[in-house]
Amino acid sequence: MINQKIKEAIEQYSEELTAIRRKLHSEPELSWEEYETTAFVSDYLTALGIEHRKTEPTGVIAEIKGGKPGETVALRADMDALPVEELNVDLPYASKELGKMHACGHDAHTAMLLIAAKTLNEIKEELRGNVRLIFQPAEETAMGAKAMVEQGAVSGVDNVFGIHIWSQMPSKKVSCSPGPSFASADIFTVTFKGRGGHGAMPQDCIDASIIASSFVMNVQSVVSRTIDPQQPAVVTIGKMDVGTRFNVIAENAVIEGTVRCFDAETRDHIEKQLQVYAENVASIYGGTAKVDYFRGTQAVINGEESAKLVQKVTAAAFGEDAVYDEKPTMGGEDFSFYLDEVPGSFTLVGSGNPEKDTQWAHHHGKFNVDEDALATGAELYAQYAWAYLNK
Amino acid sequence: MINQKIKEAIEQYSEELTAIRRKLHSEPELSWEEYETTAFVSDYLTALGIEHRKTEPTGVIAEIKGGKPGETVALRADMDALPVEELNVDLPYASKELGKMHACGHDAHTAMLLIAAKTLNEIKEELRGNVRLIFQPAEETAMGAKAMVEQGAVSGVDNVFGIHIWSQMPSKKVSCSPGPSFASADIFTVTFKGRGGHGAMPQDCIDASIIASSFVMNVQSVVSRTIDPQQPAVVTIGKMDVGTRFNVIAENAVIEGTVRCFDAETRDHIEKQLQVYAENVASIYGGTAKVDYFRGTQAVINGEESAKLVQKVTAAAFGEDAVYDEKPTMGGEDFSFYLDEVPGSFTLVGSGNPEKDTQWAHHHGKFNVDEDALATGAELYAQYAWAYLNK
Amino acid sequence: MINQKIKEAIEQYSEELTAIRRKLHSEPELSWEEYETTAFVSDYLTALGIEHRKTEPTGVIAEIKGGKPGETVALRADMDALPVEELNVDLPYASKELGKMHACGHDAHTAMLLIAAKTLNEIKEELRGNVRLIFQPAEETAMGAKAMVEQGAVSGVDNVFGIHIWSQMPSKKVSCSPGPSFASADIFTVTFKGRGGHGAMPQDCIDASIIASSFVMNVQSVVSRTIDPQQPAVVTIGKMDVGTRFNVIAENAVIEGTVRCFDAETRDHIEKQLQVYAENVASIYGGTAKVDYFRGTQAVINGEESAKLVQKVTAAAFGEDAVYDEKPTMGGEDFSFYLDEVPGSFTLVGSGNPEKDTQWAHHHGKFNVDEDALATGAELYAQYAWAYLNK
Amino acid sequence: MINQKIKEAIEQYSEELTAIRRKLHSEPELSWEEYETTAFVSDYLTALGIEHRKTEPTGVIAEIKGGKPGETVALRADMDALPVEELNVDLPYASKELGKMHACGHDAHTAMLLIAAKTLNEIKEELRGNVRLIFQPAEETAMGAKAMVEQGAVSGVDNVFGIHIWSQMPSKKVSCSPGPSFASADIFTVTFKGRGGHGAMPQDCIDASIIASSFVMNVQSVVSRTIDPQQPAVVTIGKMDVGTRFNVIAENAVIEGTVRCFDAETRDHIEKQLQVYAENVASIYGGTAKVDYFRGTQAVINGEESAKLVQKVTAAAFGEDAVYDEKPTMGGEDFSFYLDEVPGSFTLVGSGNPEKDTQWAHHHGKFNVDEDALATGAELYAQYAWAYLNK
Repeated sequence: MINQKIKEAIEQYSEELTAIRRKLHSEPELSWEEYETTAFVSDYLTALGIEHRKTEPTGVIAEIKGGKPGETVALRADMDALPVEELNVDLPYASKELGKMHACGHDAHTAMLLIAAKTLNEIKEELRGNVRLIFQPAEETAMGAKAMVEQGAVSGVDNVFGIHIWSQMPSKKVSCSPGPSFASADIFTVTFKGRGGHGAMPQDCIDASIIASSFVMNVQSVVSRTIDPQQPAVVTIGKMDVGTRFNVIAENAVIEGTVRCFDAETRDHIEKQLQVYAENVASIYGGTAKVDYFRGTQAVINGEESAKLVQKVTAAAFGEDAVYDEKPTMGGEDFSFYLDEVPGSFTLVGSGNPEKDTQWAHHHGKFNVDEDALATGAELYAQYAWAYLNK
Repeated sequence: MINQKIKEAIEQYSEELTAIRRKLHSEPELSWEEYETTAFVSDYLTALGIEHRKTEPTGVIAEIKGGKPGETVALRADMDALPVEELNVDLPYASKELGKMHACGHDAHTAMLLIAAKTLNEIKEELRGNVRLIFQPAEETAMGAKAMVEQGAVSGVDNVFGIHIWSQMPSKKVSCSPGPSFASADIFTVTFKGRGGHGAMPQDCIDASIIASSFVMNVQSVVSRTIDPQQPAVVTIGKMDVGTRFNVIAENAVIEGTVRCFDAETRDHIEKQLQVYAENVASIYGGTAKVDYFRGTQAVINGEESAKLVQKVTAAAFGEDAVYDEKPTMGGEDFSFYLDEVPGSFTLVGSGNPEKDTQWAHHHGKFNVDEDALATGAELYAQYAWAYLNK
Repeated sequence: MINQKIKEAIEQYSEELTAIRRKLHSEPELSWEEYETTAFVSDYLTALGIEHRKTEPTGVIAEIKGGKPGETVALRADMDALPVEELNVDLPYASKELGKMHACGHDAHTAMLLIAAKTLNEIKEELRGNVRLIFQPAEETAMGAKAMVEQGAVSGVDNVFGIHIWSQMPSKKVSCSPGPSFASADIFTVTFKGRGGHGAMPQDCIDASIIASSFVMNVQSVVSRTIDPQQPAVVTIGKMDVGTRFNVIAENAVIEGTVRCFDAETRDHIEKQLQVYAENVASIYGGTAKVDYFRGTQAVINGEESAKLVQKVTAAAFGEDAVYDEKPTMGGEDFSFYLDEVPGSFTLVGSGNPEKDTQWAHHHGKFNVDEDALATGAELYAQYAWAYLNK
Repeated sequence: MINQKIKEAIEQYSEELTAIRRKLHSEPELSWEEYETTAFVSDYLTALGIEHRKTEPTGVIAEIKGGKPGETVALRADMDALPVEELNVDLPYASKELGKMHACGHDAHTAMLLIAAKTLNEIKEELRGNVRLIFQPAEETAMGAKAMVEQGAVSGVDNVFGIHIWSQMPSKKVSCSPGPSFASADIFTVTFKGRGGHGAMPQDCIDASIIASSFVMNVQSVVSRTIDPQQPAVVTIGKMDVGTRFNVIAENAVIEGTVRCFDAETRDHIEKQLQVYAENVASIYGGTAKVDYFRGTQAVINGEESAKLVQKVTAAAFGEDAVYDEKPTMGGEDFSFYLDEVPGSFTLVGSGNPEKDTQWAHHHGKFNVDEDALATGAELYAQYAWAYLNK
């Protein structure tokens, strides 16, 4: 199932792995601006002699051709940082960029995949098929994977594996269960129009503050009453901007929110209900409603076969105890764009270690990674490829 | 303006007036059941030689023909009691009927109008026209006046005067201002239909409890936001009957309420809004709504001329100080059915006297009348007729 | 009652009256910036030999001492313009100041009071007492009258009369009824605090969007259910500012609104209810509420005697037909600050004339005054003083 | 793992199994009234020589002592019928009792456990320990299991197995997964008290219709905003009884509902929130709230070991294909009272077969059981005991 040479190589390259991650950590680049990171990845691959091309505007797609015929398996890492101020100021490798930080572990992902590439490249003659390497930009915008797919990232690929370092899981535990892993994440805007006027003369107006408020109160029922209680769903109204002045009755109200769920039918249902609720609430008062619904990332639903392979590889490489069952998160991950094209699965590798203070939430200024987990991730990338091609 | 003979006669009949009121008080009859009261009134008029006829099922219409030609003026008293338990148990003339009571003063009205009739009858040769006497049943149902109008109570009448004893005004004060006096009083029923089902499976149902509750919350805006703040209006939801059992999602909800206002346009507006609100609220949830709106009594709007005549008569008969300005009440009074046909006005005569404990609210089991006010009411009836025919 | 010399003088100064109004109209100054207008008024009074002083930062208080002993009567005109773009571009006297306009008729008030002063000054030896002239700044901020009171505008005054040109009434009609005329106008801000967080994890947050919306829905009941339907009241929520971003659960919500009513008890009641509603709604969700209630102008309640004097003067000067009964407005007027100190009344003088296109709403860019009404207003100012001092 | 003698015996007794089930089906008895059924079970066990005792008021606890020492395993069947009118009128064994019906399959459970008892009794000498048999009354009241536990049903028991025929699963499929299977099912009543009064005078009242409606609207947020979206929960308001009459403002409102969830912490949270929401909503309006929360059955949470044993037994007895994964239901089952005392699991055995029209919902008048599934259930009971005692 697993390849012992990979295990040994990863162990051997352990210091380099950490060094690459620290270098990337100290030089974070925001989404769509990963120019230096792209150059670094490209140079590294060139040095290894791995064939690759840059994508637009940033990102790299590489391929290790195996010595034997077979399928093509893809491994994906994301590379972008966040507009967050790093609070780990004493770290020797803390961010050098004010207001930018690798606060989600993408530095680790990139380093892990580079070392996995190096390892796989060394045994390429033994590979029954090819390994596609995807260094993706802009995951934080939820649109990076889409751009990579459009530029051919998974063309000809038979299965795709992604890995995410996860501070909410114990370090070096590995979770990948069949079914939902990350939720779909959509955006909606509801624009209500009433009729403004003098604050002392409501009878001449249609008060958009009441339309908007009634909508918010009524729309709670979409989750509480119209969806199977065992089907997780969130409708959040994050922002309301109503009216202009205390003594002028509001003509306009704009409501913005997000919808999260795991199930395509539920997603369709919520989108439709938002329309129905908004229109009918507005009609109560004689106003109008316009709903703009933008579909962001889909849910990440791990394929049955791919996820079971991951569990077996994990057990073989690190023992049964390493296999963990983290429950799905309502957060989003644009890895779903790949899964929309080809089978695959997305693995979480634990990096939370209270002794090293690496249990902080993703996107927090004190987020950090237990570097012992880097080798776990790097080896998994490589073993996934080996196991899949030899399945 | 006023006739001195009337004043003297009323004074002279003062004891009889009280005796009649007490007799009626002790023998209360509910709406549409005023058989004994009708017989008593009829016998009394017969004894006086006043021409009259009984109406169906109860009630009396009489007419005193004046000795000189002129207009016809109508005087109205109502006769019915209420399903209220009398709490004034020590009164020698307390109700003899368990659970029935003259708790609104209609006993006083009937007595006052009989004595006024006796007085006017004595000076009939001097009258320039005729006096119609209306002894009306079932005012408490808001439908008695309608029945009397249909049976000819105000046919050929030029002006109608009504009087109500009023415990909320100081005794013997007299209030009759042009414009609104009592509100219109309508009834509505909203029937919502959802789709019932197992209490643990909301996703298969349309929950009528939420439709009904949302309607109640939204409909507050009809008064608070869609009507001129200076136009009094009430929308009361008195009763909600939703669902059948704690663990079955409600399929049906029935809401019953009343609407009060003074203005015909406002009334139309509210009726229409109830329909619009109910339908759109139901549509939010995929349910349906049916609104039944029943128009009860209209608002009592005193005619300008008639009310000013009342004020002048009051001042002439009892001095300027007797003229009082009681603000309108949101309560209803079916006297409006007469005003729909002919001009006229409705007078309140104060009967509240804390020293005699007669300040209790109408319809309360301790309601009583300061009997000193009876002569005021009786004289006003008679003087109204005199003054109107001599105007 | 009225003085014929005043009538003749006003007629004689009619052209000057119009000229002054046009001059002021063409040179509008915003609230607290009425420096040129103040100078003009001061110069005019100096030329007439009327004793006066400037107030801070703008405004004039003058006094005409009568030849005979008696009371002191005050006449008030306001002087400020609005930040409105004049749309009457063809008027020879249209505003010369971009974005500023006398769109509420204060130019007319100032002109009227100057001519009234000139007239009264000519007959000062006949006056039984003194006439105080108040040229007030910043009525549009609702704070100008307060500043004038603090600078002694009504010290020693026995009665104060104010006049407002009113485009919603037929030209030259005069309305001043005892009781409410303008509503009190208060400002409130409710600040709700919840607990923000990731839009996909409501269970970790307290959602301020729901607290704010629930408040808006519940607070409709303050007007619809807790206040006497015959007591006009408005609670308007003009502005809601909730949250920061579609996918972040809102931590904060700020609601701004205005309260209007005529009755002091109702005002206290609403202020208290806003506090009770806000706190309890926030507590449902575990959030907090802070209510800031700022009392603006009180209601203008015309004194019984003063208003009746106005009606008599109007009838005597212009005939019974000129007496009009305009219903109160829910708008505000800072004249109430004077009435808080001394008895008085506030008169509306109609200036709406469709033939002259002067029926546009106050504060509208096409607002204009039927100049025939200027003499009506000027004469009323002077006759009020005469009639009051000779009462 | 499984015992071949059991399999053969069950096959052999197949006709008797069906006959017992039909007899019980035709003579349904409601909860706590299972006197005849109890007598039948007792007589059957007596005939087999199985030691047992009756419980109060109905029910039977029996025990088969094994020939070898070991643990004690319990098997539970419930016996009560429902107040439902049977619509399968053509069945030769249709209910003979008007308005009563075995519409949930408990007739099948009792028959299955009797045949399992007969089979186990035949091999008792081979058993390594004892088999407790629980014939439980009143499952439909959610209180039968509690009564049995109190009467010693699981005293000395090491593991308990329950089985339920399930029409929503394909016939003869067997589902038993570790973790939640049935939800907890609680009952709550919220009683709001306002202040009643005349429908036209809201200002004197505290309107319970608004308090109740506001509660219903706000309480939707408990599910939609305060609970982890991945933690299923239902708060249903099934019944609202508000006020007495259309024109009387409601003084009282009573709301009844049910709460369903799988998680103890969530259950505590909802109970607490209902209190917090009710009290604060009432306080907005100056009313009061009283919440009565009655804890019904807990969630049925299958033990890890017990459920895995069930899956292995199923696979061994009927093949891997028979193992099914039915998702949990938000419905309740009082088997949880046993699990509160001892480890165990609850199995669903599919009985839905469209060809035999046995796919109707439980509690429906057309509910019926595919009798081919009876042997599956009977064998599982017996094999569970065998496998557990030999584990």
